[in-house]
Amino acid sequence: MQERNLCLIVAYDGTAYHGFQRQANALSIQQLLEERLESLFGHPLTIHGASRTDAGVHAYGQVVSFKTVSRIPVSRIAFAAQGVLPADVVIRKAVVVPADFHARISAVSKIYHYRIYNHALPDPFLRRYAWHIRRKLDIDSMRQALRHIVGKHDFSAFRASGGRPVNPVREILQAECRQEGNQIICSFHGTGFLYHMVRNLVGTLVDIGIHKLKPDDMLRIRESRDRHQAGATAPANGLCLQEVHYDFELF
Amino acid sequence: MQERNLCLIVAYDGTAYHGFQRQANALSIQQLLEERLESLFGHPLTIHGASRTDAGVHAYGQVVSFKTVSRIPVSRIAFAAQGVLPADVVIRKAVVVPADFHARISAVSKIYHYRIYNHALPDPFLRRYAWHIRRKLDIDSMRQALRHIVGKHDFSAFRASGGRPVNPVREILQAECRQEGNQIICSFHGTGFLYHMVRNLVGTLVDIGIHKLKPDDMLRIRESRDRHQAGATAPANGLCLQEVHYDFELF
Repeated sequence: MQERNLCLIVAYDGTAYHGFQRQANALSIQQLLEERLESLFGHPLTIHGASRTDAGVHAYGQVVSFKTVSRIPVSRIAFAAQGVLPADVVIRKAVVVPADFHARISAVSKIYHYRIYNHALPDPFLRRYAWHIRRKLDIDSMRQALRHIVGKHDFSAFRASGGRPVNPVREILQAECRQEGNQIICSFHGTGFLYHMVRNLVGTLVDIGIHKLKPDDMLRIRESRDRHQAGATAPANGLCLQEVHYDFELF
Repeated sequence: MQERNLCLIVAYDGTAYHGFQRQANALSIQQLLEERLESLFGHPLTIHGASRTDAGVHAYGQVVSFKTVSRIPVSRIAFAAQGVLPADVVIRKAVVVPADFHARISAVSKIYHYRIYNHALPDPFLRRYAWHIRRKLDIDSMRQALRHIVGKHDFSAFRASGGRPVNPVREILQAECRQEGNQIICSFHGTGFLYHMVRNLVGTLVDIGIHKLKPDDMLRIRESRDRHQAGATAPANGLCLQEVHYDFELF
């Protein structure tokens, strides 16, 4: 039988899952997708995800790829998957890709959104999807600070302490904050991200937004390469993997 | 001690609750509020809600009132309540009202929103807050149909079958549908609503939106006063009590 390499765009509410990557004693998105799609495709699957989203982190545009000998037409996969997947995980699109495509290795850049709900009182409908900050945030200061992280830099100061030693240089192509009512959405487009990097950047941005730090402290902290200089790690629930880009149009 | 009559605006995600009204064997919003606020106010409370929202129905602007001898300043109630309430129930505002104010009896009109997610595939983030309709809805037909329900009419055709016999005449002041991306929000402003009336109107509207019924069938169905003529009851999760109006500005 002919083997096809398939690629899916997957949206999920990460609240109930222990991240994307398969774990020994907790349900991950990867395990869920492998088990449920195996019933659809009729044979064991190994699914590769573009991003190893953390426990509680959401995705609107996670990309996964896997090989299959099943002949199920790609146009039917998203609909058929609804019958085997829970309501908090949705396959948005499916496409056949070249045999050498790999969702993570082939990825050129990713866009993460971090949602903040900025109001004196919490919003019961956003409790799973936004970080609630009571104190009024100065979005102009946050925007000024973002200028210091765009470009190719050593982001050691924003890397989770205790992580594996990897090259700490990453490139941020674009970073911005926009206001939508009482929400502030911080968007980060980069070629790669260190573990907890977006959440540590947001923790620092919020310290700047409440004037605990100044916009130029972002530069000082980045250059220090010292994790202890940066703000706390923002909670997982505000983070969403929005898009993954490749060197061709996937869809 | 002097007794005050207090009024609160309460927002809640109704997913985990069996409606507003206290029940024998299931947790309601009323029971939760009474039990948790009793610990804050230091004495038993009887809480009256403006609307008896059904199981799974949400509220952004539910209004409740109750008498208390506690001296806690109204300006501190919303903040203090966060310490005793779960994250899916939030007190947005508190105010002292005249002794004869009653959240339900004093209400002059209410606004309900019904949210539809209209896309071929579901959205994992809206699964608790919108009715997912796969077939493309014709919003113009739905708007035409809404003209037939504005005004003072006998709404027997849209009343839950098996309900207690009550006067079936209600007045709808305004009804509209608006598109927001892939969402359609149907808004109903009325002086009163029969049991399941909004959800039965929306079920009928969706039948019109998919051209199973014509816009003028709304008039025919209303005039038939026969529940069997109308569409199915729309699911609870799309419904939200948005505002309750009184004959003075509460806040």
